[in-house]
Amino acid sequence: MAGGPSTPELAAAVCRAGGLGFLAAGYKRADAVGNEIRALREATVAPFGVNVFVPTPEPADPDGLSDYLQQIAPEAARQGAELGEPRFDDDDWEAKLALVCAERPAVVSFTFGCPARDVVDRLHRAEIAAWVTITNVEEAHAAHAAGADALVVQGTEAGGHRGGWLADDSDEGGVGLLVLLRTVSRATSLPLIATGGIMDGAALAAVLCAGASAAQVGTALMLSPEAATAEAQRALLAEQRPTRVTRAFSGRPARGIVNRFMTEHSAGAPLAYPEIHHVTSPLRAAARRRGDADAFNLWAGQAHELVQARPAGEIVRQIAEEASAVLGRVSAIRLR
Amino acid sequence: MAGGPSTPELAAAVCRAGGLGFLAAGYKRADAVGNEIRALREATVAPFGVNVFVPTPEPADPDGLSDYLQQIAPEAARQGAELGEPRFDDDDWEAKLALVCAERPAVVSFTFGCPARDVVDRLHRAEIAAWVTITNVEEAHAAHAAGADALVVQGTEAGGHRGGWLADDSDEGGVGLLVLLRTVSRATSLPLIATGGIMDGAALAAVLCAGASAAQVGTALMLSPEAATAEAQRALLAEQRPTRVTRAFSGRPARGIVNRFMTEHSAGAPLAYPEIHHVTSPLRAAARRRGDADAFNLWAGQAHELVQARPAGEIVRQIAEEASAVLGRVSAIRLR
Repeated sequence: MAGGPSTPELAAAVCRAGGLGFLAAGYKRADAVGNEIRALREATVAPFGVNVFVPTPEPADPDGLSDYLQQIAPEAARQGAELGEPRFDDDDWEAKLALVCAERPAVVSFTFGCPARDVVDRLHRAEIAAWVTITNVEEAHAAHAAGADALVVQGTEAGGHRGGWLADDSDEGGVGLLVLLRTVSRATSLPLIATGGIMDGAALAAVLCAGASAAQVGTALMLSPEAATAEAQRALLAEQRPTRVTRAFSGRPARGIVNRFMTEHSAGAPLAYPEIHHVTSPLRAAARRRGDADAFNLWAGQAHELVQARPAGEIVRQIAEEASAVLGRVSAIRLR
Repeated sequence: MAGGPSTPELAAAVCRAGGLGFLAAGYKRADAVGNEIRALREATVAPFGVNVFVPTPEPADPDGLSDYLQQIAPEAARQGAELGEPRFDDDDWEAKLALVCAERPAVVSFTFGCPARDVVDRLHRAEIAAWVTITNVEEAHAAHAAGADALVVQGTEAGGHRGGWLADDSDEGGVGLLVLLRTVSRATSLPLIATGGIMDGAALAAVLCAGASAAQVGTALMLSPEAATAEAQRALLAEQRPTRVTRAFSGRPARGIVNRFMTEHSAGAPLAYPEIHHVTSPLRAAARRRGDADAFNLWAGQAHELVQARPAGEIVRQIAEEASAVLGRVSAIRLR
């Protein structure tokens, strides 16, 4: 959960509850990620993971951006902020690879792309497992070919950015998690980590039956005290509100709770990441500070209304316990 | 699976394998449905269900239709057909209610709306269970209030028409099945029948864990010899092809395999059901006869590539057996 709720405290709480806590390296400089790794290691000796953004292959066409910049200029003014520069960068990719190879977390998971074979080989030489986030069967094949050790299978239900890189962005729909687990299970023998809309033990039991070896949760932890979720977003997460996928905030499809900014700007938003991310960054930060939930990204999965305001460790333990109970109950049913 | 694969032979095969076979009453006159009920009863004494379309509350604005009619006129010419009349009708609603109350199948399931309380009461007096198809929590509450005995919970993964009636049609996304089962489970204590993308026993096991009492399959049976699936559609179902939701064929959101007609006409298609259904009906029938899979509706769920060309009874038995095996295996995992 880059740019938001993920903290070393949250990852530590998950680890102490028996989960595999993750740090979010995205949007940070490598040295800041290094500080988080050290903070996490002070809190726990348990294994953990680091999630890294794979850079976008090339900058967006600048001509395609100017209309959108004009469109959202009043949004910046409204927040007393300036639009950021539509700059292209690689999110400190090489420095982060060097950092993780030196720090050697148990897992590095990748989002927004598939690392090249030689990057995976570097991780393997450092005894780090490489996981790749995929949203369709084509990406699963690509990740398998690149040497991935496991696939994070992200259904359309998931909050935040779509982690894949080959989807047809004209189709807002996306593939549901259950279908994705079944089709990807047939396409590859890699272990699958299911993600998207998993909030409780029944959902964990379900994805284990559908072929996953584990589940990754995000939204489920966003109201925990260990998460750095914006206050104005906390107030809305437990409400029954629709979500949708938009490029309006970052130039890349991501799911969040529908708000005014999304409604007014989704139609005009180009596919231009990270340029649009940088453009809207100052106005989103200002809106967060001002508590204006209609003007920043309220990333959330489709089942966000089931979120619980409890310590992260309790949530993780409850999900596992409920899943065991559900599996015990359902496996006793005679189906034939 | 109205307008397509459903036949009395298919329902009978499902019933004989221990499933609850369904007849599709939609798009047919009540007397034709009566004939199918009698044919099914000659084939099996097992209980079965009938699916009925709830009428659209009011006709579409005729002014909103004319642009689309102009747009697709060349499609009719291309098939050597005429455009149909953009007529509004209630799909023989009263006659079908009278028929089912006289014939008394075990279940009548409803699509496209929620029957009024007095309709549900009529069914109950005839000892018929009333099931209502829903796609969100709001519809689940409405169906519960109307006296429904069970909810058919349709995820965005499902092929064919969305069965709900309150969704915001501006959002093509829709809610994933797992999320829908979890949120609806918390909202109502009614039994849930999961549907959308269920093709095998692992998916059945998953939805049972997620809170369903049963699963409804459609696409999974479309290549069976008992189904009346169009030949040109059969050829594409087992291929790995994307699906999307469109109003282009019927004026109502439905999921099918992406083809030329969908790509060219989705953007301009109004929300106008059953008017657009009647308009495109002759050209779709002609395209089916001519084997032109680019010009008719290829309804299919997101997991259609997993479809099997086997007798329907074998598919139903295999799904149940696999689900038992999966539940046995997964419930043996120690999660904590």
